[in-house]
Formats: sequence, structure tokens, C-alpha cells
Amino acid sequence: MNVLVLGGTGFIGSNLCKSLLIRGHKIRIIDRTIKNIGFDMTNIECVEADFIDIIDFKPYLKNIDVVYHLISTTVPATSNMNRYFDVNSNVCTTIRLLDDIVKSNAQKIIFLSSGGTIYGQTEITPIPEDHPTNPICSYGIQKLTIEKYLFFYFHEYGLDYQVVRLSNPYGKGQNGRKGQGVIPIFINKVLKNEEIQIWGDGLTIRDYIYIDDVIEALSTLLEYSGEHRILNLGSGKGSTLIDIINIISSVTGQKALVSFTEARSIDVRANVLDIKKTTKELKWEPKYSLSNGIKLYIDKI
Amino acid sequence: MNVLVLGGTGFIGSNLCKSLLIRGHKIRIIDRTIKNIGFDMTNIECVEADFIDIIDFKPYLKNIDVVYHLISTTVPATSNMNRYFDVNSNVCTTIRLLDDIVKSNAQKIIFLSSGGTIYGQTEITPIPEDHPTNPICSYGIQKLTIEKYLFFYFHEYGLDYQVVRLSNPYGKGQNGRKGQGVIPIFINKVLKNEEIQIWGDGLTIRDYIYIDDVIEALSTLLEYSGEHRILNLGSGKGSTLIDIINIISSVTGQKALVSFTEARSIDVRANVLDIKKTTKELKWEPKYSLSNGIKLYIDKI
Repeated sequence: MNVLVLGGTGFIGSNLCKSLLIRGHKIRIIDRTIKNIGFDMTNIECVEADFIDIIDFKPYLKNIDVVYHLISTTVPATSNMNRYFDVNSNVCTTIRLLDDIVKSNAQKIIFLSSGGTIYGQTEITPIPEDHPTNPICSYGIQKLTIEKYLFFYFHEYGLDYQVVRLSNPYGKGQNGRKGQGVIPIFINKVLKNEEIQIWGDGLTIRDYIYIDDVIEALSTLLEYSGEHRILNLGSGKGSTLIDIINIISSVTGQKALVSFTEARSIDVRANVLDIKKTTKELKWEPKYSLSNGIKLYIDKI
Repeated sequence: MNVLVLGGTGFIGSNLCKSLLIRGHKIRIIDRTIKNIGFDMTNIECVEADFIDIIDFKPYLKNIDVVYHLISTTVPATSNMNRYFDVNSNVCTTIRLLDDIVKSNAQKIIFLSSGGTIYGQTEITPIPEDHPTNPICSYGIQKLTIEKYLFFYFHEYGLDYQVVRLSNPYGKGQNGRKGQGVIPIFINKVLKNEEIQIWGDGLTIRDYIYIDDVIEALSTLLEYSGEHRILNLGSGKGSTLIDIINIISSVTGQKALVSFTEARSIDVRANVLDIKKTTKELKWEPKYSLSNGIKLYIDKI
């Protein structure tokens, strides 16, 4: 298939492209900065462009069958600082993209949403896809709004779509120095013997998933034609920050220095995704435990 | 109280201002065109400005206690023609407004949302507030997104808010010639002996509420401090277009000419709001049946 990957050189995008190439697909990527993504890019068509500046997506959609939309201009913390920018750059630009997709021959869009922020505070754990969605950060609201527009374009124009509500991915290709993900940040700190600063008491529970498990599911979605438009993607297991630090200490054999500061209001107490539906629909399941994933990651650094 | 009414000269706004004045409140309105709204406006402070052009709301928020946000730049049908404009002009501008409200002394915002479009296709009738929200038109999505941001500003800044999911209001002040509402349009057609064009078979069911019932509830909300942030506002009763035409014929004594054309995809089959919570919380109930409301409306034309 001919696949367009928006955000193709990022952490998830680069791992996805590698997998799609191996599966024999033809890839075009759009990213702000085209950089080497750690493997032979000869067969990838690269477009260097900033998502929010693209007025006309049609040239990039030529001959494309499926679009992976992995771009977000914000992360949860930055989204809250400028809500206007968050909606304008993410939602409005995605509407422009969808308007052009329905004019093109592309059949399907796979959108990376946020399992970690879209549900907000929840009473139950793990969280199923039909749980109410009341985000407490702007990032979660813009993701939800795009999900609603995907449903609209499906209803109005028959555009096939798939929403993936991803938890917290980690692994090779993730850049701890850019503040991306607690696991690389913590590994980096431990290896350098620097202090780890934790917002809150370190007991907030999150769902962490190893990148290879994410990519296996995302690649499988290319062929998925079931009825479930929204699927959670996580390990289905909860871990605290303290758990992560203990694992890193154990794998590296180095003691971690930890300090605690006040919790941020964007942080929900617990967030673990119910992945029963995904497991069943994609005939997929996470292969890596948190210990195995972190060990593998550290081995590759 | 000092009240700012955004959209103060519109159909709902003008009726609301009249009621608020009688109740002794001080009013400032912002509207695109300040026109006479059918009663003495001496005591109303008028600001003529286009919502989407306002970069800084702070001057207009000076000394204001409560904001009624009644503005939408689109209606359901027009919203679908340009989704980008719909989100940009409604959601992004409302974020600018909320950013300024939290910097002001205003305590509360009352937002007019859409009971008719926010739920999408529903299986049950009447529809309670906790029903899933899957709009099939852009208008419903932008309203839903603003609701989610209101929750966010409440969570992040403690800004008190109230969402009113209104069904289809009708009555004095509504302008049939501007394509606003089927009831004035139908009345106008019947009185002029012109043909009424119906999309679909005329059996789609909607919840119509007389303007005085709407205003009674909206005014009461100024003092409401209960826990329910989202309230449906409708008659709680369903009527078809054919019902309406029959009532108009009966009240006017004139036969209606009707033609039928294909249904629009933005139209849901049935939409009747469950108003149990609103009735209980506001100690309010609709006083006007559809027949009485239409009769009253025609008597005042």
C-alpha cells in the first residue's frame, strides 16, 4: 500500500516507518525536519514541511491509500499554556487535512489520540473505550475534538478512520533530552547520577507500553476493517514512577536520587487502559513487560 | 448583578435582556449590529463589535459578574459547509474570551449549547444529559468542544460555569425571513399561501420550546448554584413538522401547501430532551404547549 505518515521522523513515526517498509509498503513522510531516522531511508519519499503551515495537502496525498496522522504541535503540559494555539494548530489544521483527504483517493486515516489524557479523572480502572471523556488538559480536548471530526467526516463523506488512544510509549528512538517521556528522562538521570524530580508523591499510576508493541498494533491497523473505530493501545497494566525508578536501578545497578515537588493539576491520579477490545480485534497483545522493555531499551542506548 | 450578554440583540438575547432588566440587573451587551430590540434600551450599555474580531475582551468584562455567551457564528447547516471557520471562529474566540474572564472579576459564565445537535443519533428518547455525544454536524462538535473547555477552565482556574443544551426555541423576536427556525418560516409561508418545502418525510421528531419558557430558565440560572453544570432545556415533548403545520393551519384557519424533498444528512431522526434534571434543579417547568405557544406567537405577529 502507499502510506503517508505525518510526523514520520518522530519517535513513533520513525519506528512505524521501519516496520511498514519491512512489510513492503511504499512510504511518504511529512515532517518539520527531515532527519535520518536510524535506517536506510532511500525508499522513503520525504517532504520537509511544517504541518501548521500546509494550506493544501492535496499534492502530498497523490497516490496515497492510507494516512497515519501522528502529529501534535503540543504535549499535555505545553497545551495548557496556550489553548488557542493548541486548538488552532491541531484541530483547524487537521480539518484542512480531512477536507483534502475526502477530495483525494486516500481510503483511510489512522489517527493517534491520547489514552492518557482523553478520559480525565476516572473512577474505574482499567478504562474502557466507552468511558466518558472529560479531559483536564487542553491536549486531551483537542484530541477528542479531532476524534469527533473523524466521526463527522465518516458520517458525511464515508471516510474510513481509526482512532488509537495510546498510553505512554517508551523505547528506542525516544529522546529523553527533549523532555519526551519519563522513562528516558529517568534512565538518563540515573546513568548520569543526577537527581530525579518527581511532581507529586511518585505514586500516580500510568500505563507504559514498549514501542515495539505499539508499532505491531499500529501496523496491523493498516489491514483492520472491523467495526471498532476507537481502540485503546496500552499495556493494560499500571505502574508508578517509583516502580520505574526501582526497575531502572535494578537494571543499571545504580542507585537513583529522587526529590519530590508539588503535583501538577493536569495529572490524573491513575490511568490504565482496558485493552481487551484491542487484543481481540487486532489479534495482538503486548509482548514486553515493563522490566523487559526497560532492560531492552537500556541495552540499546 | 452586572451581566454581560454576548449576542444581546439576537432572538434569545433580546428576550433575555428584557427579562434581566425587569429583574433589576444591569446589562451590557456585545453584538455585531446594535439594533433596537423592541423595548426601552436606555439602561443597557451597548457595544457594537464582531465577536470574532475581538482580540481583547477585558475592557468589556470590567465590573461584570456573570457572562451569558449566546453567540454562534454558524447554524447547523452552515457549520457543515466550512468546518475550519466553524472551529476557528467559535472555539478559538471563546478560548480568548475564557482567558480574559479568568483575568477579570467575573464569577460565572452561562453558555448556550445545542441540545438538538450535540447528542447525534440516539437510541433512546427523551435524551438525558449523560447520553454519549457524537454529533453528526460541525455545529454540534464546536459546541461540545466549548463545553469541554468550560470544564477545563473550571478545573484549572475555578471559573464557575453553566452549560444549557437548548432544543428548538420559537416565538416573538424570531426572524423567519432570516431562515431562523422552522416555526416562523412555516407561519410565514402559510400566511402568504406559499409552499412549505420539507426535507424528508416531515416525520422527524423535534423538541420545540416557547421563548418565554427558555428565558424563565435562563434567567433563573443566574442565581443557580447547584452541582449540575450541564442542563437540557426543552419542552421534553416531541413534535413532527407535520404536527406543526397542522397546528398553524388550525390556528390561522388557512390550509398549508407542502412539498417533500430528500433528507439532509445532518438531520437526526428524533431529538427530544429529557428535562427531569432541569425541572428539579431550577424548580422550573415549561408553561406553554406547542399549540398555545404557536397561537401566542401568531397573535403577536
